[in-house]
Amino acid sequence: MSGQSGQWVYRFAEGRAEMKNLLGGKGANLAEMSRVGLPVPPGFTITTAACNAYYERGRQIWPELAQQIEENLAYLEKETGRSFGGDKPLLVSVRSGAMISMPGMMDTILNLGLTPKTVEALAAESSDRRFAMDCFRRFIQMFADVVLKVESYHFENILTEKRNARNVRTDAELQAEDLAEVVEEFLKVVRRETGTEFPFDPREQLFLAVKAVFDSWHNPRATVYRQINRIPDDLGTAVNVQAMVFGNLNNQSGTGVAFTRSPATGEPVIYGEYLLNAQGEDVVAGIRTPRPIAEMAQELPEIYKQFVDVCRKLEAHYRDMQDIEFTIENGKLYILQTRNAKRTAAAAVKVAVDLVREGVISKDEALLRVEPDQLDQLLHRRIDPEAKLNVLAYGLPASPGAATGKVVFDPDRAQELASENVAVLLVRSETTPDDIHGIKAAQGVLTSRGGMTSHAAVVARGMGKPCVCGCEALKIDAAKGKFYIDGQEYAEGEVLSIDGATGRVILGEVPLIDPELTPEFKELLSWADAKRRLRVRANADTPDDAALAVELGAEGIGLCRTEHMFMDKARVPVVQKMILAATLKEREAAMAELLPMQKDDFKGILQAMTGLPVTIRLLDPPLHEFLPNREALLLEVDRLRREGGDGQLLLQREELLLKVRALAEQNPMLGHRGCRLGLVYPEIYSMQVTAIFQAAVELVNEGIAAEQIKLEIMIPLVGHGAELARMKKVVDDAAAAVLKEAGLELPYLVGTMIELPRACMVADELAQEAEFFSFGTNDLTQTTLGYSRDDAEGKFLPFYLEHKILPANPFMEVDRDGVGALVRIAMEKGRKTRPDIKLGICGEHGGDPASIEFFHSAGLHYVSCSPYRIPIARLAAARAVLKG
Amino acid sequence: MSGQSGQWVYRFAEGRAEMKNLLGGKGANLAEMSRVGLPVPPGFTITTAACNAYYERGRQIWPELAQQIEENLAYLEKETGRSFGGDKPLLVSVRSGAMISMPGMMDTILNLGLTPKTVEALAAESSDRRFAMDCFRRFIQMFADVVLKVESYHFENILTEKRNARNVRTDAELQAEDLAEVVEEFLKVVRRETGTEFPFDPREQLFLAVKAVFDSWHNPRATVYRQINRIPDDLGTAVNVQAMVFGNLNNQSGTGVAFTRSPATGEPVIYGEYLLNAQGEDVVAGIRTPRPIAEMAQELPEIYKQFVDVCRKLEAHYRDMQDIEFTIENGKLYILQTRNAKRTAAAAVKVAVDLVREGVISKDEALLRVEPDQLDQLLHRRIDPEAKLNVLAYGLPASPGAATGKVVFDPDRAQELASENVAVLLVRSETTPDDIHGIKAAQGVLTSRGGMTSHAAVVARGMGKPCVCGCEALKIDAAKGKFYIDGQEYAEGEVLSIDGATGRVILGEVPLIDPELTPEFKELLSWADAKRRLRVRANADTPDDAALAVELGAEGIGLCRTEHMFMDKARVPVVQKMILAATLKEREAAMAELLPMQKDDFKGILQAMTGLPVTIRLLDPPLHEFLPNREALLLEVDRLRREGGDGQLLLQREELLLKVRALAEQNPMLGHRGCRLGLVYPEIYSMQVTAIFQAAVELVNEGIAAEQIKLEIMIPLVGHGAELARMKKVVDDAAAAVLKEAGLELPYLVGTMIELPRACMVADELAQEAEFFSFGTNDLTQTTLGYSRDDAEGKFLPFYLEHKILPANPFMEVDRDGVGALVRIAMEKGRKTRPDIKLGICGEHGGDPASIEFFHSAGLHYVSCSPYRIPIARLAAARAVLKG
Repeated sequence: MSGQSGQWVYRFAEGRAEMKNLLGGKGANLAEMSRVGLPVPPGFTITTAACNAYYERGRQIWPELAQQIEENLAYLEKETGRSFGGDKPLLVSVRSGAMISMPGMMDTILNLGLTPKTVEALAAESSDRRFAMDCFRRFIQMFADVVLKVESYHFENILTEKRNARNVRTDAELQAEDLAEVVEEFLKVVRRETGTEFPFDPREQLFLAVKAVFDSWHNPRATVYRQINRIPDDLGTAVNVQAMVFGNLNNQSGTGVAFTRSPATGEPVIYGEYLLNAQGEDVVAGIRTPRPIAEMAQELPEIYKQFVDVCRKLEAHYRDMQDIEFTIENGKLYILQTRNAKRTAAAAVKVAVDLVREGVISKDEALLRVEPDQLDQLLHRRIDPEAKLNVLAYGLPASPGAATGKVVFDPDRAQELASENVAVLLVRSETTPDDIHGIKAAQGVLTSRGGMTSHAAVVARGMGKPCVCGCEALKIDAAKGKFYIDGQEYAEGEVLSIDGATGRVILGEVPLIDPELTPEFKELLSWADAKRRLRVRANADTPDDAALAVELGAEGIGLCRTEHMFMDKARVPVVQKMILAATLKEREAAMAELLPMQKDDFKGILQAMTGLPVTIRLLDPPLHEFLPNREALLLEVDRLRREGGDGQLLLQREELLLKVRALAEQNPMLGHRGCRLGLVYPEIYSMQVTAIFQAAVELVNEGIAAEQIKLEIMIPLVGHGAELARMKKVVDDAAAAVLKEAGLELPYLVGTMIELPRACMVADELAQEAEFFSFGTNDLTQTTLGYSRDDAEGKFLPFYLEHKILPANPFMEVDRDGVGALVRIAMEKGRKTRPDIKLGICGEHGGDPASIEFFHSAGLHYVSCSPYRIPIARLAAARAVLKG
Repeated sequence: MSGQSGQWVYRFAEGRAEMKNLLGGKGANLAEMSRVGLPVPPGFTITTAACNAYYERGRQIWPELAQQIEENLAYLEKETGRSFGGDKPLLVSVRSGAMISMPGMMDTILNLGLTPKTVEALAAESSDRRFAMDCFRRFIQMFADVVLKVESYHFENILTEKRNARNVRTDAELQAEDLAEVVEEFLKVVRRETGTEFPFDPREQLFLAVKAVFDSWHNPRATVYRQINRIPDDLGTAVNVQAMVFGNLNNQSGTGVAFTRSPATGEPVIYGEYLLNAQGEDVVAGIRTPRPIAEMAQELPEIYKQFVDVCRKLEAHYRDMQDIEFTIENGKLYILQTRNAKRTAAAAVKVAVDLVREGVISKDEALLRVEPDQLDQLLHRRIDPEAKLNVLAYGLPASPGAATGKVVFDPDRAQELASENVAVLLVRSETTPDDIHGIKAAQGVLTSRGGMTSHAAVVARGMGKPCVCGCEALKIDAAKGKFYIDGQEYAEGEVLSIDGATGRVILGEVPLIDPELTPEFKELLSWADAKRRLRVRANADTPDDAALAVELGAEGIGLCRTEHMFMDKARVPVVQKMILAATLKEREAAMAELLPMQKDDFKGILQAMTGLPVTIRLLDPPLHEFLPNREALLLEVDRLRREGGDGQLLLQREELLLKVRALAEQNPMLGHRGCRLGLVYPEIYSMQVTAIFQAAVELVNEGIAAEQIKLEIMIPLVGHGAELARMKKVVDDAAAAVLKEAGLELPYLVGTMIELPRACMVADELAQEAEFFSFGTNDLTQTTLGYSRDDAEGKFLPFYLEHKILPANPFMEVDRDGVGALVRIAMEKGRKTRPDIKLGICGEHGGDPASIEFFHSAGLHYVSCSPYRIPIARLAAARAVLKG
């Protein structure tokens, strides 16, 4: 289109809401308001296509565009009965307006058309020379700043000098003559800084402003914003030119902003502020205190009635809560702008549910009105938005929720203090599986290194703990018990707060608001439950997690990671004994210690999930994760060797180092883990299965009906049919032994995790043995893409996202073309062998709305996610139905 | 069949060669010989089905089988005119005979049917009581050993005592009476050890022997052999019962073994030995020296003529060189056994080619007669088979060929000595990329750790250097300059030899035979070239490799790994500078140093490959591989900190440690490598492409026609279309700049390695940019199976292979169901977008015959393998056509 001639400019009355692409958000909105008969000051929109054409022409406005602008100016003059640069002057506002609003774009220019001549006409018309001069100096200041690129401080200096000279405190106290002098000074600055005169031809002003809007599309801030938000560069921005109306002509005039409901709570009460005899800037500047909108009922009852009516009309038309800018000019109400109001998660839920109750929207629409990710806010403690905060630094918002606590560097110490009911914050450069007990004990986690998918982030999200990661301003000197934020020293034990939703790190304690699941929240989710086809299960490793998951609506456990049970501080030494055992006998002794611990955990989990399916994954991670730190051990051995003291100790440490080295792997992600462990050490899996079934038997003996226990035993990291066949036998044998001794029948399923590309390719073979597949999309993403999550985050992935090589972080949103395609192949092959095979997914993607949409469309039976993501998944699953 | 009644026993005359499955190899062979009229002593075969049925019946011989054996005994009696246990006694041999011959199975029992009664009849018939007694004592000894499980040493002791008593040196000197006494003693031992009498009922002897054969199918040695060679357990063994003939009746009798051609060289001369008046054991025992078969022409001209005739008949019938056992009984020739002769690689090639020349077989058959892997022997130096060796230890035969040299632990030292023309052997616990220059300098590599796919093994194979890996008996104490083999101390500098084909580690120098490519070798390969559809290219990284590859028949280079060029000792510091550069400018300075080095390499390679395509892969491995060892650095920093001396040095080392740590990755295989490097540091790829095209331009300027330079630039580790598009632009820009300056046109292709499952799934998208795909099946295997090659080999893979969880090492033989399925998907998708896309494979599988068969059937255009695998690949590709 851009290379051809066409309609580059639309009057508001010519457009409509659907033309957002061409007119931008603001332009389409003004057009729509005009169309439905709302009182909008007349104006026109220069299209986004014109913006693109402008760039294609080397940033030039071409004759056809110029002509169309002129024609529309003439229309405006006619409509308002004014003339541009004339005696009854037409003044206009010029605003940018892209399809998606974004920061960094050129701001509004008001009162364009003012010149030394028209300013006097305005003074006469308003009978207020001070107002006219103030408009003029504001216009010059803004135009010079955003169009002529004159630094703003020059103008601020002049104003400051003038205030000083007049011995007043505020600009409002300057008189008309003062402002006239200010204008003269401003014009001198422009002359000095730009080498030319300020343009006093209104048409020149307008064309320069239009160019400035177009140019701002490619300014650095907007460009970065688009990169981050993956907004295409060729959307372009529109330009809106609109006749000015004045809220400051008299006391029958005014200006204000309002929401049709509370944007904080969603309460159905008009909420906003207005000022009589004022312009919009006065509200923003905070010189005069605006008054709550309710007071307008007394002050301007007619206008208020009209306003309430407009609000009703707007909500009825847009079928959503609106955010409105309005001006009253001499007793006449003008709506300058309306848009769907930004709102808190709480308000989003309440408004959506209320609109259903009011009969404005359907339940399905209500489900589409709430972004699932928003719900996260409602499920976690948050910082009181009213509180004054001393923000020291920002990190990555890695796990939502807010926490306050004493800074502790050491996970053991964290556990110790927590057991004394001291609230602690675990602060480390990064965390490892050795720190799990510390994370569990802490209120939250703060790290100086690592990204959104670092160990700390993943574990914290899994546990529902607030976490701020990769806070680079933070340096820790654990040896000295100190930490530094931007060079400032603090001692361990200092109280910090973190906000995992924003990444803020705050000094001292802050007031926190507990999450509250409102009736509307529950109602909305009940509608989602009725709508969705996907079941939602939880990834839960402890009885506490399981109970929480049920509370949040889980329909079972999709992933219980038994290795997390091994990570308890009390158990790690026993696990180490098991790993380092030289003989089967030694290993069995260690396992005999672990068995009752595991059994108790399983019992608690199964009890919490009575009647619901529980998928338990047998041991998965590399064994060496449970072993001591290799570098520390190396240094210790080196020291012992040098000192030559305790030979016995040296020998013992050397031996340990050898074992740690022997167990170390070049690429542990691709190493001796998952069922590969179970195959080489079947006794470990056998012990785990024994513990599971002993737990089940005890529950039955305690009165739970056997059919209420729905066990699904899952074998991890299977790639070959023979692996699964052998492991299934181990499971069946161990289960049979327990059940036989108990004289009990207890049906259960055996299935496998699908987390290797090979497993997808041979899923037909695996389904011979597997009664269910659970897609482990975390690992499947790693192997399919060849990305180590631990490494990619800190190395090339940020670069990839910044440069749009990847559309999204594949560990957050499932990669449909690669991983997704493999999932589809595996599903198809699996079903070919076993049509009724149960199919689910238990990677972190199970809690990601975009991924859930895919899993729904692919036809999985369930997703499984961490407990706090369950409401999100329930809503996302319903939305997937509606979008599909 | 086993559960039903049926024919469990076949007379030789009833069977034929095709019944190998049922009759076993030996039985089918005897049947076939009988069928074609060769003089075979009569006999019968108890089938493999009977063996399986025997096991199903709990190791019992059942009435139907017993009856069929009896019937066949009767037939034997009739045929020979003798009777079992009678006055003119029938004696039989009992032999095992599975479909595939294997060690550990029960050996032959001769002269079964001898009893105190029949032994006298035999003495009378042969007029040789000593012979009869000797038969008897041998029979008892063997029967007692293999059937009654009496330890052999008891009998050896008795013989020794008897010799001492008679004051003779050998058993041959014992007289008939002595042997009669020995028999008495033997029988006593049997009575004492088994608690029962030695069975003197010939039928009981026979049935016990049959059971013993069946039982030996499941003895440990056979079981392990089947595991290793992946032979199914339910093949079962047959039992052959055959009338005895005697080569020791008189001087018109004799026995011998012969090959119809030389098994060492393939020369078409009957080759073998015989002894007159002797039994087979006499040949084996070495008491009398057998005589070359040629002498038979003088000694027994009639028989010799008959024998030559039989040889001719056998070769004509079996259409291959035969290995024959024969006996002459009283002037009558009997063929006891014939089989396709085992032969050296050299003989295999010569025999195959000669048989074609003789019109016996077709060229196609000749190609099927030589196992491609055998050719390896012909391409490497080997140890003179005549040499006496002092074998100290065994390791894994990791890379074929033999080498002798002074032991050197340090790669730098190896390079130094090699430059002084000292032959060295690099001996290390394991190697890393830091050692490449040392491997290159050495005659061969010996390591104490690591498997067939360890770094040392892979690199050595790539370079065609002999290598023995994982020699656990070897301990190295580099600090002391000592090494130990089985506790024995040796000094660095000691001369060792290794045999990479067998894993032998030998003390001192050994005589080596240089490889020689015979005319027959070349002829066979020329037939292969005419037959095959797959092109064969080389993986070659240096001009030397390229030249060698051409000599061995390469039709281009399929993989030139530019990172190997970086690993030269002189270059590593420059590469480190490049990696550690803090700024682009620093990096560019380092690259400017590298550019001319790379250019010279490319020039040499392109020159060697004039007229042939050359695929050059841009930099691939993780950068941290080029950095110093982290543990050593850690200890150094620790030491410097303690000593507190040179603060400057400490700072510098600390900084280096930080960088090494920062570059270190949890899973480098899945880390920041391949095109991920090229994307973040496009200047590196740009430099490499510049070097490539500068090399090409120089060659053109030196007179090589531009169309003779066929460049294919390959981008590694691509998973997303956007990666390839960006990298292709970098390539095109750099190439265009060089060509423009030179004023030259030079067509080239840009393609990608397919080594990630995701790349396979989006191959249609990749083919938009890629003009060729080269499957990197090494990495594709790692990601598809989720195996780290470095780790799997030393951890679970041996267990997996031993327990048949995997049918083969997937790094040796391509995994068809997983990796192969992905390759097929990628090919199909790639062709959909670009029907003429070039498709090849450049993983190590490119040199594996079984994998080549798959690549052929999948429809690839070429395979690429290390130079020494090229003849193997050429042959395998031809055989793939024939087998398809």
